[in-house]
Amino acid sequence: MNFQEALNFYQNQRKKMLAMRYVNFLSGWDMQTEAASGSIEADSEQMSVLAEYDYELTSDERFAQAVDTLFAQKDQLDEVLRHEIEVAKKVIEQTLKIPKEQYAEFSALTSKAYAVYVQAKNENNFELFRPYLEKIVEYNRNLTQWLKTDELQGYDVLLDRFEPHYTMAQYDEFFALLREKLVPVIRKLPTESQAKDPDWATQLFYKEGQHKFCEYLRDVMCFDKTRGIMKESEHPFTSGFGTDDVRITNHYYEKCFVSSLFSAIHETGHALYEQQCDKSLNQTLSGGGASLGMHESQSRFYENMIGRSEAFWQVHYKHLQQQFPVQLRRVSLKQFVDYINTAKRSFVRTEADELTYSLHIMLRYEIEKKLIDGSLEVKDLPAYWNEKFNEYFGIVPPTDTLGVLQDVHWAGGDFGYFPTYALGSAIAAQLFHAMNADFDVFASLEEGTTAKINAWLGEHVHKYGASKYPDEILRLATGEDFNPNYYVEYLLKKYK
Amino acid sequence: MNFQEALNFYQNQRKKMLAMRYVNFLSGWDMQTEAASGSIEADSEQMSVLAEYDYELTSDERFAQAVDTLFAQKDQLDEVLRHEIEVAKKVIEQTLKIPKEQYAEFSALTSKAYAVYVQAKNENNFELFRPYLEKIVEYNRNLTQWLKTDELQGYDVLLDRFEPHYTMAQYDEFFALLREKLVPVIRKLPTESQAKDPDWATQLFYKEGQHKFCEYLRDVMCFDKTRGIMKESEHPFTSGFGTDDVRITNHYYEKCFVSSLFSAIHETGHALYEQQCDKSLNQTLSGGGASLGMHESQSRFYENMIGRSEAFWQVHYKHLQQQFPVQLRRVSLKQFVDYINTAKRSFVRTEADELTYSLHIMLRYEIEKKLIDGSLEVKDLPAYWNEKFNEYFGIVPPTDTLGVLQDVHWAGGDFGYFPTYALGSAIAAQLFHAMNADFDVFASLEEGTTAKINAWLGEHVHKYGASKYPDEILRLATGEDFNPNYYVEYLLKKYK
Repeated sequence: MNFQEALNFYQNQRKKMLAMRYVNFLSGWDMQTEAASGSIEADSEQMSVLAEYDYELTSDERFAQAVDTLFAQKDQLDEVLRHEIEVAKKVIEQTLKIPKEQYAEFSALTSKAYAVYVQAKNENNFELFRPYLEKIVEYNRNLTQWLKTDELQGYDVLLDRFEPHYTMAQYDEFFALLREKLVPVIRKLPTESQAKDPDWATQLFYKEGQHKFCEYLRDVMCFDKTRGIMKESEHPFTSGFGTDDVRITNHYYEKCFVSSLFSAIHETGHALYEQQCDKSLNQTLSGGGASLGMHESQSRFYENMIGRSEAFWQVHYKHLQQQFPVQLRRVSLKQFVDYINTAKRSFVRTEADELTYSLHIMLRYEIEKKLIDGSLEVKDLPAYWNEKFNEYFGIVPPTDTLGVLQDVHWAGGDFGYFPTYALGSAIAAQLFHAMNADFDVFASLEEGTTAKINAWLGEHVHKYGASKYPDEILRLATGEDFNPNYYVEYLLKKYK
Repeated sequence: MNFQEALNFYQNQRKKMLAMRYVNFLSGWDMQTEAASGSIEADSEQMSVLAEYDYELTSDERFAQAVDTLFAQKDQLDEVLRHEIEVAKKVIEQTLKIPKEQYAEFSALTSKAYAVYVQAKNENNFELFRPYLEKIVEYNRNLTQWLKTDELQGYDVLLDRFEPHYTMAQYDEFFALLREKLVPVIRKLPTESQAKDPDWATQLFYKEGQHKFCEYLRDVMCFDKTRGIMKESEHPFTSGFGTDDVRITNHYYEKCFVSSLFSAIHETGHALYEQQCDKSLNQTLSGGGASLGMHESQSRFYENMIGRSEAFWQVHYKHLQQQFPVQLRRVSLKQFVDYINTAKRSFVRTEADELTYSLHIMLRYEIEKKLIDGSLEVKDLPAYWNEKFNEYFGIVPPTDTLGVLQDVHWAGGDFGYFPTYALGSAIAAQLFHAMNADFDVFASLEEGTTAKINAWLGEHVHKYGASKYPDEILRLATGEDFNPNYYVEYLLKKYK
């Protein structure tokens, strides 16, 4: 296969891979937002048949050959394709290093583990899940052996799969800073039972009204409605295909109306990243976000830095009051902004506020590190979780359901995923700092939309899609490497 | 390839073909009911990439070999597979007979023709569309040469592609009967402008109310909501995958409320056919309806024989009145039933009533026959259309938009499709007659649902899916061959 043949083959195969991305997106969207419950099984069966086709495309030997050929002459490729080929080569090499049989066993294991995990969580029964988690940990320990390189060993191997170029060196420093600066602050916060919601916040806010205001927020954020839609689902998420089909969902709790507002802002943040990628990337495998952490940085930037700011609500709170005149008549802007920035010590990560969130991640990071290096065993996990939780939060989860069993990620086999969440928050703060050096971000909100912010992120982050590594994009956007100090400064200033 | 190898290959390939059926259904559904306007282009591109995969599956030489091998030993196959292999062999043979280049040219032609047709219709400009239609007719004339066999020549070749085993011999007899018995009756009907809608029927019936009543109708017809959904779209349609994912759409006109009611009944009729197929057919290519005509017979049976009957509304009209108490307070059951059975002479097929509908089809059948045998040329078509229309309806379309340009089918390249619509109506009447011999159909409606009717159709028609030819199913269900007399008798009795 010569260079031109390799290029043709690669481009042709890539088209098919993109088509399968579309199908995977569409089917997932349909099953989560549309299909009747009794349709899911038959529809899923078809997707498992197509997964074989998907696998054939990526595991095709000629594809590997084409990538090899192009990699050997990568100086002749344009920048986007060069990056794509480097990434593809790495993925292919890693895939070849994983013994096929054990990979298949692991897939079967995680399929089963999910149902067991759900039962274990519902019944507060860690022992039920324990044998599955032990095997999952063992597989991940094996992964670190199979995939190790001169540069990456141990837990770093796993971290790199979810957030390339971020290793324990960075994370350790990052979390040490959080431990030093945030833990003392957080231990003084009220607990959930001490910090009750004000009565006005738990009134009935009818769903249609919430939906309407979320559409307003989406317009404020300049979501392009001709290239995307908003719908309901059990849990909010963003999905889509390329820049031109971007879909978000929301969920409305009538007794907790702020939930849908911040989900709308969060998911629209993800959506803007997708919509603002350079359109030329639609023809490549380099569309979409650069990494999990980078994607999360965008959703959290809009949700927290912008969406929870007083500057934002100074412009938009009156519209929220108009939507819910009875419920919010006597609630001042200050009361509202204070409420949406309440910090407290709570057990569940997904319900945590902006200040405490990253400590929940730190706990998981430290546990994963120990599970992978063998200094902690699964059987000792619940006790260790509670001990560490007490150390950081000064409270002990009353059940494993509210403790070690609360997250689904490990049941899915994913180790190394959690840290990207905290990374996202810290990157958001670093971008916020750089953006403020260019223009007064809060002042720009007076215009009524986030257009100026969108433009900055579009130019400095979004347009690159996944055509560069996330650390490289961060450097281009902010002029420096990852620096968690901005994040800690931001939090301490806000929650002083 | 020995018998067992052929069987394995066939079954494996069939799985992939089924998965592609799912994808095609899903993408079509999404584009017609969900995706934002600006997403359609990118999504469609992916489907055109996947169409290549679809084509690879069906045109795979090993697939043809497997079908040949199985066909040669078809006595060893079970009944369903034997039928499937017979059909597959015929399709493969036909495909091989069509010169590839001309097939590709034709595909490109019809893609372009659609847009031109829409413009021609909007501008009442037949000449714009004429060169395209001439090429489409020429291709169809060529098709009859390429695909002719000892049994099928000329227009019969095309008819057989849409409704196997129904030829000009049957259709000529059928339409001769309609011409003789119905034309004299229809020529005495009032025209559209003479038969105005009563004032109560054109009041505002708000959309949500219509939607709610359509859901009621769907329940009356026992549509299984755990295995299907109902949504809105520009034009009502039924779509889905297998028995377990069946979807229907509706469209609500606030100034013409009966439209959505009968669309709901019509589409649910299609849906019941799909939902009541034998589940074992889900693993095969023999699920779904036996043919276009057979499918249409089900939707029209429920819509016309049942849905427009006094017996049906004797049970359900009070619920409709409850849904629209202001609008229908002074409208009696008799007034309502008379209104929904009004017959009049009108120009447009899709808006025609039960009595006049088949004459619109007869006109198209006769024109297609002449276009294919060469006794009519496209340039003479508008004049011929109007002349014939006047002969049957005693009125002349004021424009080609309301005449020869009203239907999209020819622009799509389809000749031989139209007759299946009339066939469906006639088959519905034949089934109605046979059903009444087993039990009193109208009396069964007193139970409040169509359960007994569904059960009869499930047992005599639906369960077979496409595992038999439609004429065979009709024979099994009614004990005789296609007999259009039941249809004419039914119409003349109802509209005497």
